Amino acid sequence: MTFSVAVSGASGYAGGELLRLLASHPDLEVRTVTAHQNAGQKLVSAQPHLRSYGDLVLQPTTAEVLAGHDVVFLALPHGKSGEVTERLSPQTLVIDCGADHRLESATDWAAFYGGDHYGAWTYGVPELPRATGDQRADLASSRRIAAPGCNASTVALSLAPGILAGVIEEQDLVSVLAVGPSGAGKSLKVNLLASEILGSASPYAVGGSHRHIPEIQQALRAAGATAPTISFTPVLVPMSRGILAVSTARIIPGTDAAGIRRAWETAYAGESFVQLLPEGEQPRTADVQGANTALIGLEIDEAARRVVVTTAVDNLVKGTAGAAIQSANIALGLPETTGLPVNGVAP
Amino acid sequence: MTFSVAVSGASGYAGGELLRLLASHPDLEVRTVTAHQNAGQKLVSAQPHLRSYGDLVLQPTTAEVLAGHDVVFLALPHGKSGEVTERLSPQTLVIDCGADHRLESATDWAAFYGGDHYGAWTYGVPELPRATGDQRADLASSRRIAAPGCNASTVALSLAPGILAGVIEEQDLVSVLAVGPSGAGKSLKVNLLASEILGSASPYAVGGSHRHIPEIQQALRAAGATAPTISFTPVLVPMSRGILAVSTARIIPGTDAAGIRRAWETAYAGESFVQLLPEGEQPRTADVQGANTALIGLEIDEAARRVVVTTAVDNLVKGTAGAAIQSANIALGLPETTGLPVNGVAP
Amino acid sequence: MTFSVAVSGASGYAGGELLRLLASHPDLEVRTVTAHQNAGQKLVSAQPHLRSYGDLVLQPTTAEVLAGHDVVFLALPHGKSGEVTERLSPQTLVIDCGADHRLESATDWAAFYGGDHYGAWTYGVPELPRATGDQRADLASSRRIAAPGCNASTVALSLAPGILAGVIEEQDLVSVLAVGPSGAGKSLKVNLLASEILGSASPYAVGGSHRHIPEIQQALRAAGATAPTISFTPVLVPMSRGILAVSTARIIPGTDAAGIRRAWETAYAGESFVQLLPEGEQPRTADVQGANTALIGLEIDEAARRVVVTTAVDNLVKGTAGAAIQSANIALGLPETTGLPVNGVAP
Amino acid sequence: MTFSVAVSGASGYAGGELLRLLASHPDLEVRTVTAHQNAGQKLVSAQPHLRSYGDLVLQPTTAEVLAGHDVVFLALPHGKSGEVTERLSPQTLVIDCGADHRLESATDWAAFYGGDHYGAWTYGVPELPRATGDQRADLASSRRIAAPGCNASTVALSLAPGILAGVIEEQDLVSVLAVGPSGAGKSLKVNLLASEILGSASPYAVGGSHRHIPEIQQALRAAGATAPTISFTPVLVPMSRGILAVSTARIIPGTDAAGIRRAWETAYAGESFVQLLPEGEQPRTADVQGANTALIGLEIDEAARRVVVTTAVDNLVKGTAGAAIQSANIALGLPETTGLPVNGVAP
Repeated sequence: MTFSVAVSGASGYAGGELLRLLASHPDLEVRTVTAHQNAGQKLVSAQPHLRSYGDLVLQPTTAEVLAGHDVVFLALPHGKSGEVTERLSPQTLVIDCGADHRLESATDWAAFYGGDHYGAWTYGVPELPRATGDQRADLASSRRIAAPGCNASTVALSLAPGILAGVIEEQDLVSVLAVGPSGAGKSLKVNLLASEILGSASPYAVGGSHRHIPEIQQALRAAGATAPTISFTPVLVPMSRGILAVSTARIIPGTDAAGIRRAWETAYAGESFVQLLPEGEQPRTADVQGANTALIGLEIDEAARRVVVTTAVDNLVKGTAGAAIQSANIALGLPETTGLPVNGVAP
Repeated sequence: MTFSVAVSGASGYAGGELLRLLASHPDLEVRTVTAHQNAGQKLVSAQPHLRSYGDLVLQPTTAEVLAGHDVVFLALPHGKSGEVTERLSPQTLVIDCGADHRLESATDWAAFYGGDHYGAWTYGVPELPRATGDQRADLASSRRIAAPGCNASTVALSLAPGILAGVIEEQDLVSVLAVGPSGAGKSLKVNLLASEILGSASPYAVGGSHRHIPEIQQALRAAGATAPTISFTPVLVPMSRGILAVSTARIIPGTDAAGIRRAWETAYAGESFVQLLPEGEQPRTADVQGANTALIGLEIDEAARRVVVTTAVDNLVKGTAGAAIQSANIALGLPETTGLPVNGVAP
Repeated sequence: MTFSVAVSGASGYAGGELLRLLASHPDLEVRTVTAHQNAGQKLVSAQPHLRSYGDLVLQPTTAEVLAGHDVVFLALPHGKSGEVTERLSPQTLVIDCGADHRLESATDWAAFYGGDHYGAWTYGVPELPRATGDQRADLASSRRIAAPGCNASTVALSLAPGILAGVIEEQDLVSVLAVGPSGAGKSLKVNLLASEILGSASPYAVGGSHRHIPEIQQALRAAGATAPTISFTPVLVPMSRGILAVSTARIIPGTDAAGIRRAWETAYAGESFVQLLPEGEQPRTADVQGANTALIGLEIDEAARRVVVTTAVDNLVKGTAGAAIQSANIALGLPETTGLPVNGVAP
Repeated sequence: MTFSVAVSGASGYAGGELLRLLASHPDLEVRTVTAHQNAGQKLVSAQPHLRSYGDLVLQPTTAEVLAGHDVVFLALPHGKSGEVTERLSPQTLVIDCGADHRLESATDWAAFYGGDHYGAWTYGVPELPRATGDQRADLASSRRIAAPGCNASTVALSLAPGILAGVIEEQDLVSVLAVGPSGAGKSLKVNLLASEILGSASPYAVGGSHRHIPEIQQALRAAGATAPTISFTPVLVPMSRGILAVSTARIIPGTDAAGIRRAWETAYAGESFVQLLPEGEQPRTADVQGANTALIGLEIDEAARRVVVTTAVDNLVKGTAGAAIQSANIALGLPETTGLPVNGVAP
């Protein structure tokens, strides 16, 4: 069975990645693409790598244009999704790749984003270990799904197994991420210019201000934490895509190494897209480039009494567009892996 | 007054950087350059960016060749410096850019390096805050100086002020570093190939095995720590040079924000090469490329109860060759900043 | 119908790319992978991005191991394919991604490669415009196919339409290519280290010595040239993959602009993988990353009386592994585009 | 003697590089820096790599602010220099790093730039081989100097020796350049974003439209050409700085290899900043990063009957700011090499 699809924000990086992946999805058929500034242009003019879409033209992003499809993917700047989706049919499967529907807490929303809070939709990270309930069951019955923040889901997948298994403390978590600039979108800002980023590494949103922090905490609470604290620092590095997250947590005293490793093994046993590497192996972002795969390395630092979890993700795929399609597959009753690459484009 | 200089390991990255900086040093004159495999070649064949050295030829690295200079810089693989220097005059100023003379503890040496331990020389980080004694005074009277490990000195400069001032805990420190591959030297290893590193971020020496850990701990003990623990993870990123270290530490309860900032301000007041940025500003490695400058950003994460110190350093300059020359300036009684650039090559 | 496949040289870059593409090919099933140094290892240890191959183990590269498959892809260093294939059944479809079977002229082989010349197989560039005969017909009936050199096929596709149509001169062609280092393979050479290539552009094989020159000339002769001359210069730039070829040719006097453009339009009308961009648009290598697509820009410089053809190709896909699989599809009677992506992984 | 200096456009890339170089110039003292949007800010806020300038504040770019200095460097967008300089004293040495005063031909100006043509100033490429007159003598007596276009001067230095010596034809020159994005300035354009440039090579201004073409032709006419034609194509590649120009020209029949090489040897004998490499060696942009050096490789392609000249330049130094300071040194009667680095920052 073929489902009709509309993609809004199709001229941006997240929208482009949705379309790249959807082009080889056997059951989802893109009928409509929309954009803001580029409306009226051919898609391929705005996204010259999307050769398969031929003469498809970008339409304006309105509820009217998006209506009448089985699935609507939203890849809009934050604050833009709420309004549009209120006017779409409740039967339409809507996947929001923006931030508008990720946070349950209105307080967190006000503190980190501001503006109207539209409430939280089902969180689009199927593999997320949870203390109660089941993420996939929730997704299967949902028509409104919030694709995750790329950094947030990477850190959540890194740490949630240890929280769920009770082998790491939920206080004093520390995550530092090397991230590529595509996560910041196609924004015209001086600090995103190639001349500024080539040959340079630079941290941003340092000291607890990054908007993905409450999203991480929410995911860790779902895994059983009560009031987790995390020091979270992203560092912009010269690669277009990719997140390499180094996350560390204090080991709960008395836990042995085998028990720690078992926590992650158990959490991701049988998963296609989240893979724990053997001891001594570390992931590289190149290995997941273009793929819906998260690779996780796990080491125990006895001297520092911390676990160190290293996780590689393509921010545009597993971090955004791939997670969105994977969640859509579940919601539509399709095999979860349909149309999603597991092998990275390396070197 | 002009001092005669010999540089060994002149065909490698550290040796090349020493020579680039020495070329514009008014008081140090390079007379002799030595190498292992490239001996007999012109220096400029092995280091085509060093145009100013004309027809200077690489000689073999022996004590005989190195003898008779006022200053000898060693940029050799670890394990190679000890033997050579035992045969140099005690009056000769010897600066070792390798690891052989950095660690005071024979136990640490055995655990992290192995092989003969030649003991520690004066540590070549003049700005290092110390609980007792004075780093510059020690350097001024020394003829044997160990230039620091690039990652180690970056983290030590990041955290030592907080230790010295008693505002951060010495336990449970966490440092994650984005580093360029030149720190690994001109080694023929698959993981250092351009195809492997371009477009990719990859951690290494994860879980407490990196050789710079005991060096950091030693520097923090000099700043007053008793038995500091640190989780230390370097991540290789696609820039040839540069270290961006994110270091976090738990704030000692009861310490206020102003007191924390004052610790770093006091430590580096009046320093030419170690500069604390205003609140809200973060360093970029491009800003220190080719310069002997360490830029430090400092933020307080109230929610996580941690300070976050972000430090940018050029691994080959302030991390190695610049630190070596700065230390040599002090030991020779020259103005400390002689011949060392403070401005980075950006963009 | 499913064809069984063996891939030799599976631990290298070309072999890895064959396997990445074959993983989503519906009709080709990889049964055997071989390597030299890495034999005995799991494939995924040598190629950690190829997650879908599970526990498949690398076997040694021998005729015995390769025998018994419907299709054998060879991705071996030059000089290694000839020997192995002489011992494979003539019914086996063998696609050589190495150079051994590309050149028809023994003289050219001796001048540019040396060693035994095993003769030329059918050239695996299906879209190659030819003056007589038909490349696809030849491929359809062939059991021995030589995948092209990446630079050579890029330049041949750039210039052959103009030669065939008689609108450009075959003398005094000039091609300069910006190329990523993966084209040089996983070789341990100093000039391929990341530290050497990051932030730097460097030409190599300057002045007519590059081995792809006779291959280009052979392809242009197939398009109707008699004795073409070409100045060919590759420049290594800091991107892991990709070729951006700028090829210029003198316009034959009296030819009008429309006629020139028509030459390329005609040559590639209806092609899935070779696409001529509209006037004023230029290709970018990012737009074809990971894809089997060649994008061609065409401009006429009236003042210089030259056409300028700019062509972007992924050296590992359309330049090597994709061309090999596309040719195999034809030889096996499958739809030519089976299993081959047309959309690039950008940004 | 110390000369007072003002730098306009100090918040841009060319202005920043002027200031980086001037910081270590013993005879030029920066008193005033100006900018447009950033006026009122500290220089170090806009240029965080320029640590040595302390609290110097950017002033607005007006003739009043610039007046009263011995030397004024202009690094303004094209079209902005003419007006300002008409109001500066004729005794003030003014060096324009923009395009406004480069082209002698009003026709060329109208065709490639448009708007008011302010006429040509003395061209700031001291080493430019000329058929008659002497570039340095002209610079020594000039108070108005036009620093060159970075691409234009690179190509002019590559080809002028062959034109002057009569060993290459002036028709049918071809130059293709790999260039970093800093040459395009700190402009907020989508195609200059890091996500667009990382991992990608893309040509621009293809087919004879680039504004540096008439400037190259003018320089070649100064070397003796009558009506040179050149196909000129720049390709943007992922490095912040650097130009690697591959320039080819037809050899005039009857010229022998030794005579060709002698043309370049003669032209640049004794030059500090323009160096011809030995046969078989090619330049890399890393070798001239941050330096005022142009490295030139020269090969003869007997089969193609062309010389191939490969030239590496740092676009911001030898291509702009270094050329400007070198020219100022001459005009002020200082030793030409004062304050200018010859060694590159590599790796």
